[in-house]
Amino acid sequence: MKKKKILLNAFSMNCVNHINHGLWTHPRDQSENYNDIAYWTDLAKLLERGKFDGLFLADIVGVYDVYQDSVDLTLRESIQLPVNDPMMLISAMAHVTEHLGFGVTANLSYEQPFLFARKLSTLDHLTKGRIGWNIVTGYLESAARAVGLSTQLDHDQRYDRADEFMEVVYKLWEGSWEDDAVLRDRKRRIYAQPDRVHKVDHRGDYYRVEAIHLSEPSLQRTPVLYQAGSSGRGQVFAGRHAECIFISSQTKEAARKLVTEARRSAVTQGREANDVKVFMGLTVVVAPTEKEAWDLFQEYTAYASPEAGLAHFSSGTGIDFSKYAMDEPIRAVKNNAIESLVKTVTNPELDWTKRKLLEQLALGGRYATIVGSPSQVADALEDWIRDTDIDGFNLTRTVSPESFEAFVDLVIPVLQQRGIYKTEYEDGSLRQKIFGCGNRLSAKHISAGYRAQVRERAAQDVAV
Amino acid sequence: MKKKKILLNAFSMNCVNHINHGLWTHPRDQSENYNDIAYWTDLAKLLERGKFDGLFLADIVGVYDVYQDSVDLTLRESIQLPVNDPMMLISAMAHVTEHLGFGVTANLSYEQPFLFARKLSTLDHLTKGRIGWNIVTGYLESAARAVGLSTQLDHDQRYDRADEFMEVVYKLWEGSWEDDAVLRDRKRRIYAQPDRVHKVDHRGDYYRVEAIHLSEPSLQRTPVLYQAGSSGRGQVFAGRHAECIFISSQTKEAARKLVTEARRSAVTQGREANDVKVFMGLTVVVAPTEKEAWDLFQEYTAYASPEAGLAHFSSGTGIDFSKYAMDEPIRAVKNNAIESLVKTVTNPELDWTKRKLLEQLALGGRYATIVGSPSQVADALEDWIRDTDIDGFNLTRTVSPESFEAFVDLVIPVLQQRGIYKTEYEDGSLRQKIFGCGNRLSAKHISAGYRAQVRERAAQDVAV
Repeated sequence: MKKKKILLNAFSMNCVNHINHGLWTHPRDQSENYNDIAYWTDLAKLLERGKFDGLFLADIVGVYDVYQDSVDLTLRESIQLPVNDPMMLISAMAHVTEHLGFGVTANLSYEQPFLFARKLSTLDHLTKGRIGWNIVTGYLESAARAVGLSTQLDHDQRYDRADEFMEVVYKLWEGSWEDDAVLRDRKRRIYAQPDRVHKVDHRGDYYRVEAIHLSEPSLQRTPVLYQAGSSGRGQVFAGRHAECIFISSQTKEAARKLVTEARRSAVTQGREANDVKVFMGLTVVVAPTEKEAWDLFQEYTAYASPEAGLAHFSSGTGIDFSKYAMDEPIRAVKNNAIESLVKTVTNPELDWTKRKLLEQLALGGRYATIVGSPSQVADALEDWIRDTDIDGFNLTRTVSPESFEAFVDLVIPVLQQRGIYKTEYEDGSLRQKIFGCGNRLSAKHISAGYRAQVRERAAQDVAV
Repeated sequence: MKKKKILLNAFSMNCVNHINHGLWTHPRDQSENYNDIAYWTDLAKLLERGKFDGLFLADIVGVYDVYQDSVDLTLRESIQLPVNDPMMLISAMAHVTEHLGFGVTANLSYEQPFLFARKLSTLDHLTKGRIGWNIVTGYLESAARAVGLSTQLDHDQRYDRADEFMEVVYKLWEGSWEDDAVLRDRKRRIYAQPDRVHKVDHRGDYYRVEAIHLSEPSLQRTPVLYQAGSSGRGQVFAGRHAECIFISSQTKEAARKLVTEARRSAVTQGREANDVKVFMGLTVVVAPTEKEAWDLFQEYTAYASPEAGLAHFSSGTGIDFSKYAMDEPIRAVKNNAIESLVKTVTNPELDWTKRKLLEQLALGGRYATIVGSPSQVADALEDWIRDTDIDGFNLTRTVSPESFEAFVDLVIPVLQQRGIYKTEYEDGSLRQKIFGCGNRLSAKHISAGYRAQVRERAAQDVAV
């Protein structure tokens, strides 16, 4: 049986620390240069040299203020604060690369769908179809207060609103301009054909939009859709919309379950099981030999901040871990969102304590970690793929950019020799590169129902 | 008396046509490449070669649908539709330049101030302080409907809301992080000092924001503020906030009056007359000789679309000019906003008709136009500066990019020889380059009252 090729995103964020907290203090870490464009263009070129599928940029709106009921540690340790807008980085990186994809996280809860759709269309145009959008609905009370709300919508309502937001942007991206709307005919002086451009008229529970989409059709129209929801309602949303699903798990059993659920949810929504690609968050510490890798791991842990990782996790779960004694069982709150987060940090079958969490957070971050020589790392990646049916990885940074450099220089060649990683990029959009089925979303995806041509045909059918 | 140096922005937009409509049909025009990053990076490098102060990017949210009560001509002629997000262009252009400034238009009416402030701070960081913001409040009903409103706020209310929006973003930009908040001290593991970072708590008529600004202080903090309001309420707003004011006028008398009013309005708000720089919209057709310039003008007019210019102007004034006979006097509606727009197209002392408007729109655009040899153009620029007290020009594009190339190659050297144009850029931020008084807004500007340190001192004064 032919082994599947591993998909690979680098995972980063427009800020100092991302997932592995505290490592900005390492003497070789350059992440405090996040405001230099060259930091990002150098990274993009490095990743393209390593044939990465994409750079996946996280984002957060709001601050982490649950731990110690304060934002103090967040500021001192720079736990994703300050954090700048990721979209502003894209055109510079797209200019110095040809194939690398860009997955940008954007919280739809505080965006106008009409203006948001234009932002993503602009980026899809400028990147020639290399843009993806990681759909998030947000979970921080501090974000709600920042935009003038006394509190956020409850969890399931946020997803109801998100479903409607998606409907609006599909109408704008897929339905407003027909494929042949733009002629660019200089002789006849016709840039676009008015009868091929349609006004969207959406009146829903959360949004009302009456407008022509401001952007002409881009290569992908709808960007590649990423999503990370692992709650029940989040999984339904992902099954309906997501093309790439981002999970994190400490155990293969839990990962396998998440993958199965993700594919099943897509099938339930009338799609194919392989219409979703699943990426797992992963931290890798690699060096030429196993011993050097463990030495490097030890060196990194001396700078990492498990407490900052815990503070980050406090906001994710809503539990202020500062209030717990080291060996006190943590059973405080139980709900789906928290349980799914707990899975990312520890084996959910075991009792968990702050001590165990901190051990798990030795590198300051909560993702599964592989330490070893290039072939050991390659073995481990193969095992994860084989045992869990995931499609690839979102690779975190530790010391930046050296952790990505090491992966590109040491691990990628091994994966290529084993025939489980591309040696050349395919042509075409990010969607075509990942799925090999064209630039547009498949006809089975919910967005297809909003295409202008489909709508026109449906109207004709009715008329006949 | 030493002549003042001419300030110069190139004026463009993330779309096919900008001001001079119809010229996208010219065989040499490349503006339909607006979705290629290289179109923009090449332009940025060209402008930096010409020592331009900035690239000023217009934007519009909504469509022009007043003329013929339809969007059809707008689509056929591509009258700023399609139009993409200008902010997405900046990082690529900033990456290939060192000094060029970027003035980005953004309509605050449909933005969340909290997220908007982060966007501009991100760009100020990435450009190392070369970002400006052209503040607009919008005027299109189609934009209001696109974001779910049945109609927009009335004109003066829009400015009231805009004043409050500015208050919020000043609080975020100037007041949330003190100058010494960020230490980046790796040894002591202190990225930012919590007691130097303050939560903004704004409760106003239009906005409620309770948040720490997500971005650490950038070089300019508040971007250089552009504004173009020429109504009474708009001038008050400009006097209070704007550092650069953008006007358009066909006659020197009208321009002189606008400049006097702009400076007076600033003084009324406690600022200096020269705290505002006034830029006038201008179209230049230049060639090595006068005859060649007029030949080029004739060549361009064969491709220009005065009717598209008229349709654009219909949305600006709210008057559907398609309903008028060629020589029928147009006296339909009279109000401040329209009168100020009319000044931009024709001498307001004269009766105006559609025929006269179309003659004025020979190049498809409404800005004053200079045609001539390099020295004739230089003479005319000097005359405008001397006779009206403006500080510089927003130079439109005609055939793109050749009109900017011609200006850089033919006119700039003449201006430099005459000592009225810089031969080298100064160091520092865009603000420092334009005003020579540092990177931050002056203490007399309204924003200074929102600085964290000022507020702290005021609190101490009260305490004492």
